[in-house]
Amino acid sequence: MIERIINIEMKNFKHPKTSRQEALRLILDRSRFQSRVEILPVREALGRVTAQEVLAVNTLPNSPVSRMDGIAIKFANLSGELSNSCNWRYGADYVFCNTGVGIPGDFDTVILIEDVEIDETGELRILSIPQAGQYIRPAGEIMRAGDVLVPEYSCLSPLHLGLLSTGGADEIPVLSKPRVAVLPTGNELVPVGSKPPRGKTVESNGIMMEAQIKIMGGEPHLYPIIRDDPNELVKALRDALAWADMVILNGGSSKGTDDRALEVLETVGEILVYEMNSGPGKHTTLTIAGSKPIVGTVGPTIGAVYAMEWFVRPLICKYLFQPMIEPERLKVKLLDDIPAAMEFAWLEVRQINGFYAAKQIGRLAPLSRQLQSNATLIMSKESKGYKAGEIAEVELRCADLAALNSPLAKAGVLERISQRIKPDRLSQSF
Amino acid sequence: MIERIINIEMKNFKHPKTSRQEALRLILDRSRFQSRVEILPVREALGRVTAQEVLAVNTLPNSPVSRMDGIAIKFANLSGELSNSCNWRYGADYVFCNTGVGIPGDFDTVILIEDVEIDETGELRILSIPQAGQYIRPAGEIMRAGDVLVPEYSCLSPLHLGLLSTGGADEIPVLSKPRVAVLPTGNELVPVGSKPPRGKTVESNGIMMEAQIKIMGGEPHLYPIIRDDPNELVKALRDALAWADMVILNGGSSKGTDDRALEVLETVGEILVYEMNSGPGKHTTLTIAGSKPIVGTVGPTIGAVYAMEWFVRPLICKYLFQPMIEPERLKVKLLDDIPAAMEFAWLEVRQINGFYAAKQIGRLAPLSRQLQSNATLIMSKESKGYKAGEIAEVELRCADLAALNSPLAKAGVLERISQRIKPDRLSQSF
Repeated sequence: MIERIINIEMKNFKHPKTSRQEALRLILDRSRFQSRVEILPVREALGRVTAQEVLAVNTLPNSPVSRMDGIAIKFANLSGELSNSCNWRYGADYVFCNTGVGIPGDFDTVILIEDVEIDETGELRILSIPQAGQYIRPAGEIMRAGDVLVPEYSCLSPLHLGLLSTGGADEIPVLSKPRVAVLPTGNELVPVGSKPPRGKTVESNGIMMEAQIKIMGGEPHLYPIIRDDPNELVKALRDALAWADMVILNGGSSKGTDDRALEVLETVGEILVYEMNSGPGKHTTLTIAGSKPIVGTVGPTIGAVYAMEWFVRPLICKYLFQPMIEPERLKVKLLDDIPAAMEFAWLEVRQINGFYAAKQIGRLAPLSRQLQSNATLIMSKESKGYKAGEIAEVELRCADLAALNSPLAKAGVLERISQRIKPDRLSQSF
Repeated sequence: MIERIINIEMKNFKHPKTSRQEALRLILDRSRFQSRVEILPVREALGRVTAQEVLAVNTLPNSPVSRMDGIAIKFANLSGELSNSCNWRYGADYVFCNTGVGIPGDFDTVILIEDVEIDETGELRILSIPQAGQYIRPAGEIMRAGDVLVPEYSCLSPLHLGLLSTGGADEIPVLSKPRVAVLPTGNELVPVGSKPPRGKTVESNGIMMEAQIKIMGGEPHLYPIIRDDPNELVKALRDALAWADMVILNGGSSKGTDDRALEVLETVGEILVYEMNSGPGKHTTLTIAGSKPIVGTVGPTIGAVYAMEWFVRPLICKYLFQPMIEPERLKVKLLDDIPAAMEFAWLEVRQINGFYAAKQIGRLAPLSRQLQSNATLIMSKESKGYKAGEIAEVELRCADLAALNSPLAKAGVLERISQRIKPDRLSQSF
């Protein structure tokens, strides 16, 4: 009893509250990753990040090839006239040539198949005078041995895989995926697959986070549920820190009697952020252990989702040398009052009659309804709240919708464009 | 020789030319898929599509739980006064309660931990009068057994996996991935990993398409290179059609002497589209064999990429009951002349000083440069071409940028919104 009371007293002590932007800056600043490299066959490297630039081994085409389907001739034989071609012999004076196929010997000009006639005896009639050298693709036009095929730190798309294969780069060095340990904690939790007894619930944040980490490009390791016992928690954290590049401690971050996260985190590292100055996920903590970040996420799913998006994703991007991706923003018309005291609201945005309208999804709505949210309104400290009918700028939600391997998966086209907004990314040639 | 000539004559016969929109309509119309279903653990179902709605097994919370960290009391004991609480005993008159944790017995009201003081002897002081029943989450508020957690044909995100796990749905029926056979053809090709002899090149479209199919949600099977021999091609196509839901025949679609695709396709099915009325990928063919589509793609990579995007992606969407995704469009300022005769242009779009500018990437540029394209200008039959400085609407390129498992992967937020443009998708409640 007494120990519990002292524990509560300690937790009621006012910790500094940190803004989301400042919190991210702090943890990115203090995290230092030792990126590992592995060699992969190109065919298995989809979505991986190159550890160095990859050079072409092949020169292609490796001899002149035809750009079109037609016949190849020796231009000098034409002597300005078409009529002489009727005596030409196949093989010596002309050959068929197909698009992309090498042209033999000293043939040097291609005539489109539509521009010739060949009768049953093999007699050739050329219907229009070609230009010398036309429709010939010179050797090396596609690539030359030694060309940079893909720069370092490129995230590999299907087209990259094709390009690398063409270039003869069959195995390439890529950054290993950052290892992310997920530690679910809480005496109230039972594992997935078991029926929760009275007062208990299922530990499902872990499975969600595991999937998020995969999408973000990390290698997740999901721990079994850890009881709210400081010794067990410290032991699990030290175990995770020995393997992982970053650790997620889910739950135990609040002020409950069993919430021992802060004292445990102080044992294994330096707490940089005790508490956020606004929700969602107000009790998110950020800790540095050596040079490895620990993101302490709240138990409620919604808060945990945002901590993943706002802190874990940028940390994975840092490990993989990828640019940070800002959430897309959109101006919407609110269909509900949203008082300032709410701090944030989950919204469902739809396009109606050419404008975007947003309906609030209540915090007490069933979880399946909450999943229909596709945007968040985050209010600044100065905001006076919103009335129905007002326009607000919202953040579109991304990560949890990004289902890999799926027809919905659509790429960072806009990101690729917006990355180039930064002047330092504008190449001289543009 | 003679056989070749007759072959060319046949190919020079003018086939009807079909627009991209009409071609897509034809092939979607005639393709009938027998979707298969498999049972998967939720943890392995990221990005998969539910084959039926999934219901909650659990009711959660399964007893009243606290919404906040605090103490639970029996409201009736308060009798309107705060002073009487000093004699309350822990366990009988109040208990600690943590967020999300079940409240025992007949406790019915929660007071925030910040609103109480407990001294070293365990004496309780309540600092503000609570409302009866406050901060109690009733049983079933998160979900009730029998609730629909996820509707049928939902593409599963990380949040879905969490929701399904919470609801006790540990194994779920999902649509099997559509099987897509990729048949690379061409005498000029050597397999990946071998050095191309003079006049030959590497078969790399297959590896690219395999990756694209994975991103689109299909299960690819990449065949070894098939020689330009009608008997071998027919044999391979029949083999592929026995296993696959759809087939991609890459190469052989042009008018070269070795291009036997059309005669082969006529042997195994009914050709719906012999030729497109515009590039890229003008010689793309569409064939129906029984009820299975065969997409004949051109050999050059750029044309093949578009055929994948324009025909294979919608076919996979149809199999998986997913909405078609229209490419994003963007108004850009062209930095180069683009004459109408080009039919289409590959562009690199960047944001400069608040507007989007597009530089053309020449068709003869090295392949690594062509990969930097992020948009396409497709000109209509009526277009008179563009001069530098004019504004044009372009299609942003998507699929090949969508690298799975990657920091760049970003979801279909805008798609989710734009799908809702259609009135039939607007729910009554909105």
